[in-house]
Amino acid sequence: MTETATNYAPLTVETLPGRLGGIKAIADRLGADTSKWRSKEVGDGNLNLVFIVESDQGKVIVKQALPYVRLVGDSWPLPLKRAYYEYNALIRQAERDPGIVPEVYHFDEEQAIIAMEFLHPHIILRQSLMAGQKIDGLAETLGKFLARTLFRGSDLSMDTAKRKADVRLFAESVELCDITETLVFSDPYFEAERNHHTPGLDPIVRELRADIDLKVGAQDMKAKFANNAETMLHGDFHTGSVMVTPTDTKVIDPEFALYGPMGFDIGMLLGNFWMAYFAQPGHGADRAEYQEWILGVVDGIWAEFSTEFSRLWREERTGILYERSLFEDQGQPLGSEQALAARLQMIWEDTLGFAGVEIIRRTLSLAHIAENDSIEEEALRADCEGRGLRLGRQLVVNRGHMGAMASVNDLARQIAQEATV
Amino acid sequence: MTETATNYAPLTVETLPGRLGGIKAIADRLGADTSKWRSKEVGDGNLNLVFIVESDQGKVIVKQALPYVRLVGDSWPLPLKRAYYEYNALIRQAERDPGIVPEVYHFDEEQAIIAMEFLHPHIILRQSLMAGQKIDGLAETLGKFLARTLFRGSDLSMDTAKRKADVRLFAESVELCDITETLVFSDPYFEAERNHHTPGLDPIVRELRADIDLKVGAQDMKAKFANNAETMLHGDFHTGSVMVTPTDTKVIDPEFALYGPMGFDIGMLLGNFWMAYFAQPGHGADRAEYQEWILGVVDGIWAEFSTEFSRLWREERTGILYERSLFEDQGQPLGSEQALAARLQMIWEDTLGFAGVEIIRRTLSLAHIAENDSIEEEALRADCEGRGLRLGRQLVVNRGHMGAMASVNDLARQIAQEATV
Repeated sequence: MTETATNYAPLTVETLPGRLGGIKAIADRLGADTSKWRSKEVGDGNLNLVFIVESDQGKVIVKQALPYVRLVGDSWPLPLKRAYYEYNALIRQAERDPGIVPEVYHFDEEQAIIAMEFLHPHIILRQSLMAGQKIDGLAETLGKFLARTLFRGSDLSMDTAKRKADVRLFAESVELCDITETLVFSDPYFEAERNHHTPGLDPIVRELRADIDLKVGAQDMKAKFANNAETMLHGDFHTGSVMVTPTDTKVIDPEFALYGPMGFDIGMLLGNFWMAYFAQPGHGADRAEYQEWILGVVDGIWAEFSTEFSRLWREERTGILYERSLFEDQGQPLGSEQALAARLQMIWEDTLGFAGVEIIRRTLSLAHIAENDSIEEEALRADCEGRGLRLGRQLVVNRGHMGAMASVNDLARQIAQEATV
Repeated sequence: MTETATNYAPLTVETLPGRLGGIKAIADRLGADTSKWRSKEVGDGNLNLVFIVESDQGKVIVKQALPYVRLVGDSWPLPLKRAYYEYNALIRQAERDPGIVPEVYHFDEEQAIIAMEFLHPHIILRQSLMAGQKIDGLAETLGKFLARTLFRGSDLSMDTAKRKADVRLFAESVELCDITETLVFSDPYFEAERNHHTPGLDPIVRELRADIDLKVGAQDMKAKFANNAETMLHGDFHTGSVMVTPTDTKVIDPEFALYGPMGFDIGMLLGNFWMAYFAQPGHGADRAEYQEWILGVVDGIWAEFSTEFSRLWREERTGILYERSLFEDQGQPLGSEQALAARLQMIWEDTLGFAGVEIIRRTLSLAHIAENDSIEEEALRADCEGRGLRLGRQLVVNRGHMGAMASVNDLARQIAQEATV
């Protein structure tokens, strides 16, 4: 399925101005005199080239896919077409929740290049979580973004012919889905080749890999991920896909976009916050208050999501599901409220299940998180990670029996306070 | 979305030999001398032209889509491409359960023509259910066909890249999905234009259309139908899509094929058997024993389905879900048995919900069933239909709380015995 684009060539700092200078949307922002452009390659992700291109007039981000996984090298090929999925996701997200994702200036499918807005002075949220920095409005922006993109990409809202066309578009993204299907949902649960974990975790890893309830639960979540095309997901919505200043929040990098279950994006995000919560002892002596702030963000994201989702349900339910003709138009608004409550409950359970799966895979599978990786003392790192694993297991297995977010956060606090895990 | 194929032209009895005489796969069966071919048009369905073409050498069925709904006329256009979906479904069903669907001899996409095996002396199952005729092996064939096609078209079995390609193929079938989404899941629950029902049902219809639990339940089933692409479904698997002799059972007409939830095919089929059960008093004085035979078929279909599905789960689970590497390969076969039981329970609940929805739409929406339509005495017809509606409502609302098939069949018996409904 890996395409070979004959004319495709990776950009370099040297070739970039010559190759992109003639593109009006870019020249409009940097000036037509490319001799005054300055480029640097800053890609620190796992997959792509990322350039900051600047002149006295402005700055532009140029992202280009490579035909392989950058983290691993050309032994792991990956289609250039992921730039096409990212571009298509970005323009849909911008339409569904304006102002949160970077503005796209230019897209070149053959070269797998997206030129887009440079976010400044934003940093990756993961960094600010390690620094103990609070972000105003973080929960509100993320909760609303989730509600708006998940609701407006679904059959609750869209014309269903358009939704089916989008399902077809993103269902072609086989290789990127395979990464999630394998690394997130299966590898952590057996001795897969690409796994690695902190040695101190050996006893709990043995325990989890023997835990039938956990493994069946994780596979139930995988089945939902693979089969339930509820809405267009970001697909990789962790705290490394969020950029922040102390007062602003943006969402980036939706190249893993696909149609899937709503709880996947929410759960992945919350799972990463819970991991950041457990990792705090590795980043400062007195982080108790900041840990509570993180739990407050988790609580706030779910609260904002469900409030905004409910508003959209009442005001924008124009799709083929739970039609107004069956409820409101028959004088039965409580019918649609009953359906809303049940749907939120379903999303809630999925969210917890996906959060648990995310915590476990970020500790045992290929890709871990900076908050844990940067803890040099191995015993302390194992301790932080182990607490996450304990919560993750509970979330997956017990997702159908957990009440409000307050009690899930209480569970996290309890796990954080236990002497050993 | 309705295509206009420039060269498309409907066949007639007169033009058929000239137009198809040069096709080797057909000439091989009928002889090259088309002057000896005899054609008659026998389409009694709602959508297509169907010809029996015969010579002294053999017989062939020629099915051609019309660019509109035959039942309604050219005011309701429908894409010719449905022949393409039917062809693709037929060849997949033949591969997944050989010998049950008609063999395809020839497919012409532009002309929307499928030439296929003539089934003889088979009649439509609906006719034999009205005649009170028992069919040997009916439950076994249908139950196994369901298990094999549903399992083998899913991520439990298929290579997932191939499954995703098939999801894309069938997700283009927007107009046929829209028919199901609208006529099956929404129209029955409000005064939709194309609805009609037996006048004696007015009181119960008012009651059902005010029943919030029922309407939310029906929409929950619609959401599953629209979003949960578990497997390739037949998509229109009622007793008019089954052809029988006293000892043989075949399945035809998968033009509504789509990726959807496993319980949809099973539930639609069982719903039609339960309707045939309630309709028996309209077709003979002493049908009590035959009614029990019908309930036995229902019981047998579910039993055969779950036995064969379990066998395939144990022997052919080669897809990306519930991988053997997590269970059997770790010496934990009971893990996969636990997952199988949960999955069968989910399919069971979906089956009951879809069965209920099917019964209700076949009584209140556009398309009804011959078993009821042919009951001339209006009060008796309303009585049979009303009992079906009572069962349908219970199935939709109570699907999560119903035990084994024996108790569902008991519920049907109880409803059949009540003095009035």
